[in-house]
Amino acid sequence: MTIEGPVGIVGMGVMGGSLARALAARGVPVRAYSADSDDAGAALAAGVVSTVVDSVEASAAGAAWWIVATPLAALPEVFAAGRSGQPARVMDLASLQRPAIAAAGAAGLAPIHRSAHPMVGSERSGFAASSADLYEGAEVWISRPEGGAGTLDAEVDDFWRALGAAPESIDPRVHDRRMAAASHLPQLAANALALVLEESGLAVGDLGPGGRDATRLAGSSPRMWSDLLPHSAADLAPLLKRLSEESAELARLLDHADHDTMAALLARTRRWRSG
Amino acid sequence: MTIEGPVGIVGMGVMGGSLARALAARGVPVRAYSADSDDAGAALAAGVVSTVVDSVEASAAGAAWWIVATPLAALPEVFAAGRSGQPARVMDLASLQRPAIAAAGAAGLAPIHRSAHPMVGSERSGFAASSADLYEGAEVWISRPEGGAGTLDAEVDDFWRALGAAPESIDPRVHDRRMAAASHLPQLAANALALVLEESGLAVGDLGPGGRDATRLAGSSPRMWSDLLPHSAADLAPLLKRLSEESAELARLLDHADHDTMAALLARTRRWRSG
Repeated sequence: MTIEGPVGIVGMGVMGGSLARALAARGVPVRAYSADSDDAGAALAAGVVSTVVDSVEASAAGAAWWIVATPLAALPEVFAAGRSGQPARVMDLASLQRPAIAAAGAAGLAPIHRSAHPMVGSERSGFAASSADLYEGAEVWISRPEGGAGTLDAEVDDFWRALGAAPESIDPRVHDRRMAAASHLPQLAANALALVLEESGLAVGDLGPGGRDATRLAGSSPRMWSDLLPHSAADLAPLLKRLSEESAELARLLDHADHDTMAALLARTRRWRSG
Repeated sequence: MTIEGPVGIVGMGVMGGSLARALAARGVPVRAYSADSDDAGAALAAGVVSTVVDSVEASAAGAAWWIVATPLAALPEVFAAGRSGQPARVMDLASLQRPAIAAAGAAGLAPIHRSAHPMVGSERSGFAASSADLYEGAEVWISRPEGGAGTLDAEVDDFWRALGAAPESIDPRVHDRRMAAASHLPQLAANALALVLEESGLAVGDLGPGGRDATRLAGSSPRMWSDLLPHSAADLAPLLKRLSEESAELARLLDHADHDTMAALLARTRRWRSG
C-alpha cells in the first residue's frame, strides 16, 4: 500500500513528528506547520519534512491528506483556518473524538474528516520524543460516521495500515467513554496517589519498583490533561467517585480486620490483571 | 568481602531463591529448606544449593548465617523450630520489621537476629522468578537494635555489601510506617483502580501503556498481601482514607469545572514525580 501525497501536518510534537518520520521513511512528501518553531526547525533539520510552511492554511492547501496533530483545544481554530486550503481528506489525532468531530463539523469539514486516535503515547513531548516506529503495530481508533462507512473510511484504514498500524472503527461516544475509563481514570488515580505520598513526606526515590510504576503517570503533562479533562468530565467524575468509594471500602476492611473479604478482592483483581 | 558459610536458607521462593543464586555465584555453600518441594527441587536442579534438608532445624544447624525467607506469618513457628540448631546469626527478609522482631524475640533469638528488608520485588513468585542479580544495587533496610549497633550490625552490612546491595540502618517503627506509605498504599491503590476498571467492562488489553503500569500491582500475590496487611492496617487505613478523599476532591473539581485548581494539582504531582 502507498500513501498519496502531499501530506500536510499541523503540529510537530511527538504525534505529528512521528507521523512525519514514518511518512518520510516511505517516501511520502510532507509539508509541516508548527506553532513551535523549535519543533519545526528540528523536523526540517532531521530531513523528515520537505517544507515548513508559515501558516495553517498553507499546510492544508491542495493536500491529499491534511493531518491535525495539535492539542484538542486548538482544533476549532485550526480546522477553520485550514478549510480554505481545500484539502482532500482531513484527520485529527486527538484522544477524544466527540469534541474533535464537533470542531470539524463547525468548520464545514465533516464529509472529509475522520478522527483517528492512535493508542500510543509518551510522558515526554515535542519533536525530540518522536520516532519513526511509534505507530508500528499500534491500535488506531477511527471514528465511525453516523451514516455508515464509505470510500473515505476505506482510504483512512489503508493510510494507517500502510504505516504498520491496526485501524479499528468505533462509535465516537463509545470511544470517549472508554477513554475516560481506560486512560483518564488511571491518570487521575496516579495523581491522587502522588498527592497522598507527597503529603506522607515520601520522595519518588523512596518507592520500590511497584510504587514507581503506579505513580509514573503523575509525571504527565498538565497542559495536555488540562486540554482533555473538561471534555471527559461527565464520564470521568462518576468513575473517580467509584475509586473514592473503593479506596474507602478497602480502608474499612483494614479497620474491621476483615481479612477474608480483603483476600477475595485481591484475588479478584489478580484474575482481572492476568487477563 | 567474602561471606562466611555455610548459609542456611528457609524458603526457596523469589527472595530465598535469588539469595541462593547470588551466594552460589560467590562460591558460598548454601543449605536450603523449603516447604514447597517444587521450589526445593528446582533450586537443587539449578545447582545453586549444595543440600536440600528436610527440616527447618537442619537448615539452621551450625549455620554461620541462617536466613528466613518465608512469609511473615510463618516467622514465629520457623524461628522457634530453628533455634535448637544454634545458628551464629539470623536474618529474616520480611517487608515489615516490628512483627518479625517480635517473633525473633519470642524465640529467644533477639541477640543474634536482624531484620533485613531488601527493596526488591516481583509480582511473580516462586523459585522460577528468582535471579542471581536481584539484590545487585538494591537498598536493604536493616533493623537498628534499641541499644545501638555492634559487631553483628557491621557483619550484616558486610553480608549485603558482598552481594552488591546497599544496606541502610533504620528504626523498625519508622521502617514499617514508611512501608505502609511507600509500598502498601500503592498496592491497594492499584487494587482499587482495577476494581473500578473491571466494573467499567474494560480488560487489561484495553489499556494503554500508562494504564497498564498503573494497574501492574493489581496482579500481586493475594497470599503475600494477606500476610502483611493485618500488620500494617493501623498505619495504612488512614492513608487509604486520604486517597479516597483526594479522589473525591478530583471528582469535585471536574464536576465544578474548576480547571485552574486541577491544573495546579497536576503541576504539583509532576514536580513531585520528577524528584
